[in-house]
Amino acid sequence: MEPQTADWEARVRESFSRQAHMATLNARIARLAPGEVDLALPFDRRFTQQNGYMHAGAIASIADSANGYAAFTLAPPGADVLAVEFKISLLAPAIGEGFVAAGRVLRAGRTLTVCQADVFTTGTSDRVLVATMLSTIMVRAIAPAPRQ
Amino acid sequence: MEPQTADWEARVRESFSRQAHMATLNARIARLAPGEVDLALPFDRRFTQQNGYMHAGAIASIADSANGYAAFTLAPPGADVLAVEFKISLLAPAIGEGFVAAGRVLRAGRTLTVCQADVFTTGTSDRVLVATMLSTIMVRAIAPAPRQ
Amino acid sequence: MEPQTADWEARVRESFSRQAHMATLNARIARLAPGEVDLALPFDRRFTQQNGYMHAGAIASIADSANGYAAFTLAPPGADVLAVEFKISLLAPAIGEGFVAAGRVLRAGRTLTVCQADVFTTGTSDRVLVATMLSTIMVRAIAPAPRQ
Amino acid sequence: MEPQTADWEARVRESFSRQAHMATLNARIARLAPGEVDLALPFDRRFTQQNGYMHAGAIASIADSANGYAAFTLAPPGADVLAVEFKISLLAPAIGEGFVAAGRVLRAGRTLTVCQADVFTTGTSDRVLVATMLSTIMVRAIAPAPRQ
Repeated sequence: MEPQTADWEARVRESFSRQAHMATLNARIARLAPGEVDLALPFDRRFTQQNGYMHAGAIASIADSANGYAAFTLAPPGADVLAVEFKISLLAPAIGEGFVAAGRVLRAGRTLTVCQADVFTTGTSDRVLVATMLSTIMVRAIAPAPRQ
Repeated sequence: MEPQTADWEARVRESFSRQAHMATLNARIARLAPGEVDLALPFDRRFTQQNGYMHAGAIASIADSANGYAAFTLAPPGADVLAVEFKISLLAPAIGEGFVAAGRVLRAGRTLTVCQADVFTTGTSDRVLVATMLSTIMVRAIAPAPRQ
Repeated sequence: MEPQTADWEARVRESFSRQAHMATLNARIARLAPGEVDLALPFDRRFTQQNGYMHAGAIASIADSANGYAAFTLAPPGADVLAVEFKISLLAPAIGEGFVAAGRVLRAGRTLTVCQADVFTTGTSDRVLVATMLSTIMVRAIAPAPRQ
Repeated sequence: MEPQTADWEARVRESFSRQAHMATLNARIARLAPGEVDLALPFDRRFTQQNGYMHAGAIASIADSANGYAAFTLAPPGADVLAVEFKISLLAPAIGEGFVAAGRVLRAGRTLTVCQADVFTTGTSDRVLVATMLSTIMVRAIAPAPRQ
């Protein structure tokens, strides 16, 4: 897959740095390639559900951002990306030292890009696939910042 | 819809109080009825994406918990609920004073319950539907707490 | 919801008449309103699965078309609609005298429209909700017919 | 992945032969392996939508059956499979000489199995990925045939 801008990597890092939610989760970019973005998330009790697993919404957060930035690596100059919808299948309890969401572009279109992210456990134990997400992402001209 | 336990409301509140992720998001239970749970979420810059909207993962978090607890209101004694999968359509930018996720049971089964949550803006402006989520939730015997 | 063309109803009927798949299934338009389309499907053994229920793909077919045409009622002149993705939750076995898929627009956008279709049994017995579908539909300029 | 029965292949073929919908579509089993089922579908005008592409419901039909039978290859003796829900992303127009839906198990559970099916064009042209489907499938004791 071919990026449409020379500075695709810098653009992804700059936008990611503006996602306060990623900083709050202590998520970071683990790998970047054209059409592929891996985000790492440490296990953190603050984002757990009633049984001590990471909440599905926390796992969905990094899968959604991984897919969005995978799409963004291929976007034309002056474009932004926006998730239209996603579906996540939760395959195993989200418990482990950490997690990585590996997002990749399945099909890049002029208006819509479809991505899939697999979320694995990381650490010393065997890698477990905890979730997979299919996302539809809109590629559009950059919107002005909201006034709020 | 008919709860199967006399203390369904207390059970929901007790389980909700153990979801650290909900406390971190400052989400709270706004309404409880058999088969229906509304969760309120204030706007908070810590959970925003690159344009200043609430991150889709934060919106998905309250929709997922609203649906899970809607299913839990109808669960038999000694059962827990676990999301198997969900799909969320993002209909409008998640910007506003706050949000409410209104989860309701579409079909309660012995093993699986299907729920839908609509997420609206709250506050002084017109109410806007920002997202809708369909969830599949498994009802199962309570698992022991993980050892981590 | 406000149609953007005077002949929205005729346009839906004309396009529906070109969906050979609907004719093969003996599906017909049961109701049309701006933003709402009901399609009726008779039970037919030719489209069943291994237990004698209607195949999920047959149910998905009418739900998909109901949602697509619900979006089409609101489309501007010279536009066509195309499903981008859908998710269907199968709530009860698809067995009965017939079925109706009631599609409605949740949000009509310039490029994307989101619809939901509920599929019910019809006939002399109690109405049963057998499925619900969320669809993302693209509104675009009419494409020339494929050359095949 | 390990089948739990010696006759898993015969069981899949026997059940498939009872899916009248697959015979109506002229779909056939192209490949069987533990956890993997490929179904082939010829292009057929009877199942097209308004632009002459195969209807999304026809494509969803073979993807749903491919995933269901992929799950069935790993099911215990005396069990049946039933789709609980699926989500399909439509990546390219479904036009070509034919199509193959390649279903595979992502995670096999005692009660639920999650599968993914990729649908490709077949024939003399380059293979195109036209759709991908994520399915949740319930594994349960065989139900008696409906009386209708």
